[in-house]
Amino acid sequence: MLVVQKYGGSSLATPKHIQSAAKRIADLKKSGASVVVVASAMGHMTDHLLKLAGKTVQVPPPREVDMLLTAGERISMSLLSMALQDLGVPAISFTGSQSGIITTNDHTEAKIVDIRPNRIVEEIALGKVVIIAGFQGVSEKKEITTLGRGGSDTTAVALAAVLKADRCEILTDVEGLFSADPRVVPEAKVLTQVDYESALEMASLGAKMQARSIELAKKYNVDVRILSSKNIEAKGTQISSQQNRNLEPMEKVSVSGVATQSGFSFFRAKISSHQFLMLTKHTPVSLRFASQSPSEVLFLCEKEKLAVIRSYFQKEEIQFFEQEDVVTVSLVGDGFVNSNSVFHQILTYLDVEKIECLMTVTNSASISFVVKSEFKERLARFFHNNLKF
Amino acid sequence: MLVVQKYGGSSLATPKHIQSAAKRIADLKKSGASVVVVASAMGHMTDHLLKLAGKTVQVPPPREVDMLLTAGERISMSLLSMALQDLGVPAISFTGSQSGIITTNDHTEAKIVDIRPNRIVEEIALGKVVIIAGFQGVSEKKEITTLGRGGSDTTAVALAAVLKADRCEILTDVEGLFSADPRVVPEAKVLTQVDYESALEMASLGAKMQARSIELAKKYNVDVRILSSKNIEAKGTQISSQQNRNLEPMEKVSVSGVATQSGFSFFRAKISSHQFLMLTKHTPVSLRFASQSPSEVLFLCEKEKLAVIRSYFQKEEIQFFEQEDVVTVSLVGDGFVNSNSVFHQILTYLDVEKIECLMTVTNSASISFVVKSEFKERLARFFHNNLKF
Repeated sequence: MLVVQKYGGSSLATPKHIQSAAKRIADLKKSGASVVVVASAMGHMTDHLLKLAGKTVQVPPPREVDMLLTAGERISMSLLSMALQDLGVPAISFTGSQSGIITTNDHTEAKIVDIRPNRIVEEIALGKVVIIAGFQGVSEKKEITTLGRGGSDTTAVALAAVLKADRCEILTDVEGLFSADPRVVPEAKVLTQVDYESALEMASLGAKMQARSIELAKKYNVDVRILSSKNIEAKGTQISSQQNRNLEPMEKVSVSGVATQSGFSFFRAKISSHQFLMLTKHTPVSLRFASQSPSEVLFLCEKEKLAVIRSYFQKEEIQFFEQEDVVTVSLVGDGFVNSNSVFHQILTYLDVEKIECLMTVTNSASISFVVKSEFKERLARFFHNNLKF
Repeated sequence: MLVVQKYGGSSLATPKHIQSAAKRIADLKKSGASVVVVASAMGHMTDHLLKLAGKTVQVPPPREVDMLLTAGERISMSLLSMALQDLGVPAISFTGSQSGIITTNDHTEAKIVDIRPNRIVEEIALGKVVIIAGFQGVSEKKEITTLGRGGSDTTAVALAAVLKADRCEILTDVEGLFSADPRVVPEAKVLTQVDYESALEMASLGAKMQARSIELAKKYNVDVRILSSKNIEAKGTQISSQQNRNLEPMEKVSVSGVATQSGFSFFRAKISSHQFLMLTKHTPVSLRFASQSPSEVLFLCEKEKLAVIRSYFQKEEIQFFEQEDVVTVSLVGDGFVNSNSVFHQILTYLDVEKIECLMTVTNSASISFVVKSEFKERLARFFHNNLKF
């Protein structure tokens, strides 16, 4: 059996954390599994390095940012390898380049092109735990690159795919994927099992995980487990294509969870589709939440990019309506497309509670409602507790 | 003109230091020179990383120590490259591996085997300042290595040799090579010029520099300048084979300076040369300071290794005399071999001042006297001020 385990920065924040991680890896190894570990940089190391860059120059060039940031995983992975060897477990650490993680040359947001895991395979065969720097790779030009946000998870899933691992465990500081953000919905529970589509939808709608790695897992059918690095007993969440649904009515709406996302502004304007095209070209409209009809467009943008849109409208002399500080509350699952009843229940609730809905966006895996931020908790809890979830 | 400049950790300790270094490099570049910069890790970064390792395990394995420590130069060199680009100077940073610095596979104390500077040469041709990670390389097995003590100076001199640079500037926190340690001899001055042999002798006898890089400079005839990173006006010390001696009598004793070294214990024992051979094989005798005759041996060892020697003698039941806490005070220069007069002057002084000399070691480039540590300052000042230095 081959397991790829990824440890996030909070799970490697101090020498003590590193020792705990090593203990867990050693136990897994001693149980008979081959283990490949993907390490993130320790705790706030990446932020610390970016701050150093910020104190040195105003706009750090991306190539050198990559050179700088990749120091982070070197530190954590070499310490982790030391800790394992100290426990009597043979281990070796490899940089992205030594691991054969070949990427595009797009500094700070490179994409993995290929993995040539010769050295990894050799060391696994020698019985070693192989520790790999997450988040980094090397381009065909032999330049050091980083994968951007969620990079370490992506490294882990990509390696699991290439090495045909039995599973990919993502160790985090939460106990798994929740049915809703527990800060918004206190009743939220850890989902034991969720399929790629729902996990992907929840990630893109604000759950604390990166969509990118789930897309990759889906593509290569990698069995991903989100686990707690603190609580080894917790079962966590399994993300895979095998859903345990044989006991359910085939066409029942199956809700996986509730996702909430804050920090948006809402716009509405009477413009043509050509004008909308220009708008999306020149401003940071969030196409994840946009809807257009021949007479008007509705869309969201991130709060901090608000000014760009406003000044675009003003420059083009386009009338617009704006609502600052809105949130999206989304129900994630499947079967929505054919279920007017869920939609109807929600609209009834909104009407009774006098919650103005500014926009709805529906697709096969979710229904999202855009409302003023003050309604976030109420709507999320209603979704979570009343839709037979 | 091509100049290799090496910046030590104290010259790159903070973003402000890095900005100053960048300014200096930019000025040199703007004067028309091609510049290759070798960067050490920032300030106490290496110590900090070693401490992290020490908190994680008791005995860190050397391979992972190298992986860990090489993170240090990545950080400093990428920040320095950013700072240069911010000043409008095109720059690019390269790891030891990207620079083609091929070493033996001896982790934590690798030796440079070859340098394949293709990428460096290409980037110089494009008008860029090339910033190279000091202290590190890659082995033929593609393992990350470090060069051990004095590693960054060695990287700089080796690159200067391979690139046929016009000179190699070592930027430090002192103003150059001193005629004696200023803490011991307050009258000590910066030497403006010194030849390889004397510099080497002074380095091996305790001056604040590494013998290794000077050996390399001598071998490849690299013109080395020790300069202050703080005081750009200071002329520093030029180390080269070209000595400005045409105005001096040909066979005059030419004194370069005084070197002092502390932290030794002195031993004397009546043993055969075979026994001495065994002793040097099994204990850390300092062969730099050892002398043997058919009837006895005299030698020094570093204070912290004292116990090994003592217990060796006890185990072998050999009688020995021991003097803890001795120092070496050395006069460095050339012409000593043929000058009994200098030797005689010193012995007279020792006799008058009742300073017991435990051992003397003479070679073509220095005369060293081993005395109790309480005499260090007096003897060093006598050497420095009275021998027409």
